[in-house]
Amino acid sequence: MRIIRTITAMRRVISKLRLRRNSIGFVPTMGFFHPGHVSLMKASVNRNDVTIVSLFVNPTQFGPKEDLARYPRNLKHDIQVAEAAGVDFIFAPSVAEMYPEKQLAYVDVGQIADILCGATRQGHFRGVATVVSKLLNIIQPDVMYLGQKDAQQVEVIKRMIKDLNFHVKITVCPTARERDGLAMSSRNSFLSPTERAIAPRLYQALCFAREMVADGQRDASQIIFRIKKLISDGTNVSIVYVSCVGLDRFLPVRRIEGKVLVAVAVKIGNTRLIDNIVVKAK
Amino acid sequence: MRIIRTITAMRRVISKLRLRRNSIGFVPTMGFFHPGHVSLMKASVNRNDVTIVSLFVNPTQFGPKEDLARYPRNLKHDIQVAEAAGVDFIFAPSVAEMYPEKQLAYVDVGQIADILCGATRQGHFRGVATVVSKLLNIIQPDVMYLGQKDAQQVEVIKRMIKDLNFHVKITVCPTARERDGLAMSSRNSFLSPTERAIAPRLYQALCFAREMVADGQRDASQIIFRIKKLISDGTNVSIVYVSCVGLDRFLPVRRIEGKVLVAVAVKIGNTRLIDNIVVKAK
Repeated sequence: MRIIRTITAMRRVISKLRLRRNSIGFVPTMGFFHPGHVSLMKASVNRNDVTIVSLFVNPTQFGPKEDLARYPRNLKHDIQVAEAAGVDFIFAPSVAEMYPEKQLAYVDVGQIADILCGATRQGHFRGVATVVSKLLNIIQPDVMYLGQKDAQQVEVIKRMIKDLNFHVKITVCPTARERDGLAMSSRNSFLSPTERAIAPRLYQALCFAREMVADGQRDASQIIFRIKKLISDGTNVSIVYVSCVGLDRFLPVRRIEGKVLVAVAVKIGNTRLIDNIVVKAK
Repeated sequence: MRIIRTITAMRRVISKLRLRRNSIGFVPTMGFFHPGHVSLMKASVNRNDVTIVSLFVNPTQFGPKEDLARYPRNLKHDIQVAEAAGVDFIFAPSVAEMYPEKQLAYVDVGQIADILCGATRQGHFRGVATVVSKLLNIIQPDVMYLGQKDAQQVEVIKRMIKDLNFHVKITVCPTARERDGLAMSSRNSFLSPTERAIAPRLYQALCFAREMVADGQRDASQIIFRIKKLISDGTNVSIVYVSCVGLDRFLPVRRIEGKVLVAVAVKIGNTRLIDNIVVKAK
């Protein structure tokens, strides 16, 4: 496995791979790998000649009061994990390499970026869409692998790829979970033991919502009400949002019809956690 | 020469060219070709294995009150002109092909899009940057050819390419002019004989500005004052802007130092014309 630090060196590799007609699988990450990342890497390794993982904590997707500085990093561990997963290249540029001067051009994805996580994380999805555009233009992969945990991010990127005619396929892999159901996330490392004990409630509440739908509940507000109650009951969890949205444009639905994404964001102490499941009314 | 109507067909051609390692030159246009377009085509034909010209009157760069519907079109003539210039492919998609559903993702280029032409044409450069992103992703050229007449457009696109890491070189060709100095433009076809007789004043005034600088004038406001007077003197020309701006970020300068772009936009009757020259203080 090779670690590449500059855009020029990355482009040189890409053009060689292209001439050999190698298919390129790409996993964009911010590092601090957990089994969720590994499942994306393995999906790519299994289906492509070459797998490239980008490792870049992207400052333009963090708000001024967010956790950019304290976002967890562990390059040494990440290199071992990626190598074991069969990754061929890690692209790990510096911030100065990716943003050598004040960035003027941004990719804006419209209304889909202003709801759910976008409503409280202003500019977050603009930063995501912009850095993914940059990475796609540098790496020019055939397939990009994303995790279902970041459902809105997946939707934003899919929309951007469609609207701007990027020539890449998207494969979405299921959310990797701890044994107790907690969605794996680099941010889980911030949780104190007490907070960690509360965190599985997100997924438990989402599973309860799925049961409600299976039992015939179709009223989104009832489902949202029960999820909020289950998560916040008697503890210091603050709910950022609980939403039932359509799968196409992520607009809120009143009734559960067909497939609906139930998405949750909370703060436990200072740590922001998200999770989601797709429920289906038969 | 082949005319291609769909993105799928265009992509098929591109991947064949790529496998043959052909270099691709690209000229983005809105059609109604004049010698300015031809000079871009010839520059590309001379330096690349294959030249692709896109011909697409892009609705997202026209404001609601602008001349989208009446923008001049003449595909038959354009095909002849491009063929004679040695072009290999014309990519002429429909609006439905380029914008199959409501566009959510746009490329925004920040402050550089809000000045000069951007100040009066709201959303214009966002539309330009977005459609050029789409075309670059479809055609993946090695070199893109642009005309100096659209100096701000060139700057917007250069900035976008840099900031979003598009892998393409830009070649800027000089403004093609009529014998009397009028910058060639598809919109010149709108001018009545009386209006056409007035139109060369733009370039005459810009040349006068160059003389002023050569004679030692360094005060931008003096130059702007004289240009306005020369253009609008006693006629129905309305001035949209006259500006002296730096070449890097197109911000207005007070004094002429080094190279400065002197840019003019006017309306003669209903027709909007632009022109510019670079002046240099020694």
